[in-house]
Amino acid sequence: MSEARQHQRQISLGAFLMETGHHIAAWRHPDTHATGGLDYAQLAQIAERAKFDAIFFADSVSVRDTHLPSLSRTARADHFEPLTLLSALSVVTSHIGLVATVSTTFNEPYNVARKFASLDHLSGGRSGWNLVTSSTETEAHNFGFDKHPDHALRYERAKEFHDVVTGLWDSWDDDAFLRDKASGIYFDPDKVHVLDYRGKHFKVRGPLNVARSPQGRPVVIQAGASDAGKELAAQTAEVIFVAHQTLDEAKHFYRDVKGRLARYGRRPEHLKIMPGIFPVIGRTQQEAQDKFDALQDLIHPTVGLQLLSNMSGGVDLSKYDVDGPVPELPETNGGKSRQRLLLDLARRDNLTIRQLYLRIAGARGHQQVIGTPQSIADQLQQWFEEEGADGFNIMSPWLPGGLSEFAELVVPELQRRGLFRTEYAGRTLREHLGLPRPENQFSESTQAAQVAQTA
Amino acid sequence: MSEARQHQRQISLGAFLMETGHHIAAWRHPDTHATGGLDYAQLAQIAERAKFDAIFFADSVSVRDTHLPSLSRTARADHFEPLTLLSALSVVTSHIGLVATVSTTFNEPYNVARKFASLDHLSGGRSGWNLVTSSTETEAHNFGFDKHPDHALRYERAKEFHDVVTGLWDSWDDDAFLRDKASGIYFDPDKVHVLDYRGKHFKVRGPLNVARSPQGRPVVIQAGASDAGKELAAQTAEVIFVAHQTLDEAKHFYRDVKGRLARYGRRPEHLKIMPGIFPVIGRTQQEAQDKFDALQDLIHPTVGLQLLSNMSGGVDLSKYDVDGPVPELPETNGGKSRQRLLLDLARRDNLTIRQLYLRIAGARGHQQVIGTPQSIADQLQQWFEEEGADGFNIMSPWLPGGLSEFAELVVPELQRRGLFRTEYAGRTLREHLGLPRPENQFSESTQAAQVAQTA
Ligand SMILES: Cc1cc2nc3c(=O)[nH]c(=O)nc-3n(C[C@H](O)[C@H](O)[C@H](O)COP(=O)(O)O)c2cc1C
Ligand SMILES: Cc1cc2nc3c(=O)[nH]c(=O)nc-3n(C[C@H](O)[C@H](O)[C@H](O)COP(=O)(O)O)c2cc1C
Repeated sequence: MSEARQHQRQISLGAFLMETGHHIAAWRHPDTHATGGLDYAQLAQIAERAKFDAIFFADSVSVRDTHLPSLSRTARADHFEPLTLLSALSVVTSHIGLVATVSTTFNEPYNVARKFASLDHLSGGRSGWNLVTSSTETEAHNFGFDKHPDHALRYERAKEFHDVVTGLWDSWDDDAFLRDKASGIYFDPDKVHVLDYRGKHFKVRGPLNVARSPQGRPVVIQAGASDAGKELAAQTAEVIFVAHQTLDEAKHFYRDVKGRLARYGRRPEHLKIMPGIFPVIGRTQQEAQDKFDALQDLIHPTVGLQLLSNMSGGVDLSKYDVDGPVPELPETNGGKSRQRLLLDLARRDNLTIRQLYLRIAGARGHQQVIGTPQSIADQLQQWFEEEGADGFNIMSPWLPGGLSEFAELVVPELQRRGLFRTEYAGRTLREHLGLPRPENQFSESTQAAQVAQTA
Repeated sequence: MSEARQHQRQISLGAFLMETGHHIAAWRHPDTHATGGLDYAQLAQIAERAKFDAIFFADSVSVRDTHLPSLSRTARADHFEPLTLLSALSVVTSHIGLVATVSTTFNEPYNVARKFASLDHLSGGRSGWNLVTSSTETEAHNFGFDKHPDHALRYERAKEFHDVVTGLWDSWDDDAFLRDKASGIYFDPDKVHVLDYRGKHFKVRGPLNVARSPQGRPVVIQAGASDAGKELAAQTAEVIFVAHQTLDEAKHFYRDVKGRLARYGRRPEHLKIMPGIFPVIGRTQQEAQDKFDALQDLIHPTVGLQLLSNMSGGVDLSKYDVDGPVPELPETNGGKSRQRLLLDLARRDNLTIRQLYLRIAGARGHQQVIGTPQSIADQLQQWFEEEGADGFNIMSPWLPGGLSEFAELVVPELQRRGLFRTEYAGRTLREHLGLPRPENQFSESTQAAQVAQTA
């Protein structure tokens, strides 16, 4: 039985790390380091000891200072730049994947291709890129724009950006570098490839000045949930991070996105869908609930209201009665899918504005599970087995305590059920996720195979 | 005597690290790791044990593939992205400064400000930015340009870029973050500053989403030697990296640049001038010369010729007789100062093309010193005492051997003479270099002081 289970499909786990934790008031929790000196090495090592597939950092390129009275009561104004941080963490870890968010709207593809390839070399094949298009006006204002570029335009640019980056990652054949001291030949000039990309948004010649990296290409992750976002993911992503409230939603999304893969010649198992989970863990249900309530009590009302406004794409809700119903929200240029998600939630459970902000204060629209290790494992198992998810992004309410509780209590429960690894089988992020190492689109062997297929 | 020497002006030392070493054929040296797995941690630790001020990585954003037959015989096609690499190295070092090159021509200031501030936090105040404008066509082709932007335009953009970055580094007062769990106030909203920069090249609102860093601002280094380059350095740089062939040149440059400082209200000791030195060290002069000749013998002629062509701003010299005189070179849009430097050298010593390429194969226009630890120390001392230099960028011919020889043989000689520290006195790069911690241009105390001065 346990032998057989070794070979069944297993859950992937990411540790989504964020300052002092995902709960908006986490920094006030007595166990978090509120000194700003949070030890990320410790967090990475907790996740690695528990055999997580990856640690993950979100990112934005602004301070959302539209409302300082609330922002100044949160730990959301300053954070490390994720690639700089992950490079440092690559040294104090050996197996765990290292996933950083970088926006395609405010960067140049050559720079981004290099950084992830560099990190892949530094870490022995553990880097992953969460490709986002960014969604806030404050970010646009730091990059010369008066307003945030249109949703459709952002996704058009994102597709080109992806194609340039992956093309640059294929600049060199895996065996291009000979480094033969005797003959004096350092690389084989026939094994370097000029991309010469010319699109609407980019003109990039290449080649990349970094050898092909251990994973061939760093893993590409996406987190957009609009139709444009899903279509881009179906074309290009290997992992999707997503927020769902219910298993039904999750199953619908899962079928929808996996169903789009065939038209790009891709197989369902080559795209992993990982919803976020915000777990509050207790030995009893009551203990878990008490932990959660203690965190909720730390939320200042001005913070809650503003959080909701941010999540709904910048809509100002302060003029409505906080204990009245959630109004219809005007369309915005920001994150359409998140706004939809909020409204659905409010309607379904008939929530007031205050109830809604308390509801999302922790999980921000992701699944919130408050329970015992068994009941949390039950829920993950159900989502996984009923094809709502291939894995989960664990969003610990506060750090490091919330993550170590998950590592010590929930992970062993998943392992007992044969749903999660007890040891790393490989060394690269691709190996952990069960993703194939991509062929080089330019190498002779790949092209020969394509010709053979066509013939 | 040695007591008094403790307080005299001391030499600054940077370890300019480059793949397998600075000599173009270094990778073929029997002692270098030609596997591409060069251990940078080891190099950083050698430099730190010897109490160097900093390690430094140059950078370019292209493969210079204009001539593959020669490029493929060098280790110059692939290298780590410097910031990614230095973040990793910050973990395995504790005191040494970490200097990365980033171009102002192919980046956005918000991203650059963040990365260096992040590295400064990660490393406890050790980051430095070598601000360059880049000078090769192949780089421009990776960023949407058909040709490299004009020299003057690049420097105009560079000045704005610098002002945006340093402005963003001052987004927060040093004491802005209170993190007071009891009151729930994370930061003081009166201590965050919106830059709102509007220039010809950039429109950047701010604030930066990183707290003010341990050094206040990472150290700004520059390496342009044209008139525009020197003027920008006089206005903005705290360190200059430069290439000189003779002490006369060095003294002239030193006086020139230091003389420009007064008009920007700056003091001479707040700008450190550090020429590059390419040291080949032997117990006897003959041993040193033999080591150098052995390296020179490893240069393939096609590599030498192309190196010269690259250094002279892209001019093709293959049509001239390699054993004939160096012709007058046409003006190019690339590095004007480097081209001048080459021609001066050829004329002064009456060199053929072959002799010229052999001459620059190691030092690339920097001072080449071949000698005993004593004679090398003599030369550094002379340059330092006669005000040709405040310190030196050590460009080891091959790695790690060339650097460990310098650390074990030359550094102790400088220490015996009281010219170099035997222990780090501080923890930050600014402290090593004797540079003041910059005031925050926006903080109330700075503004009060300015008002007082004006009154
Ligand atoms: C788990 C998760 C993590 C995300 N991380 C980021 C992030 O770090 N930065 C960002 O700009 N957007 C992030 N997003 C937002 C999406 O990438 C996307 O930009 C947003 O949903 C708007 O795009 P859409 O209209 O396609 O949904 C994240 C979304 C999810 C579900
Ligand atoms: C020691 C030293 C290091 C340099 N490192 C770089 C570098 O890493 N990247 C770069 O593009 N240019 C580098 N340069 C070149 C200069 O920054 C500058 O771009 C070049 O000299 C052309 O500018 P100029 O016309 O003002 O001299 C370096 C120069 C020196 C002396």
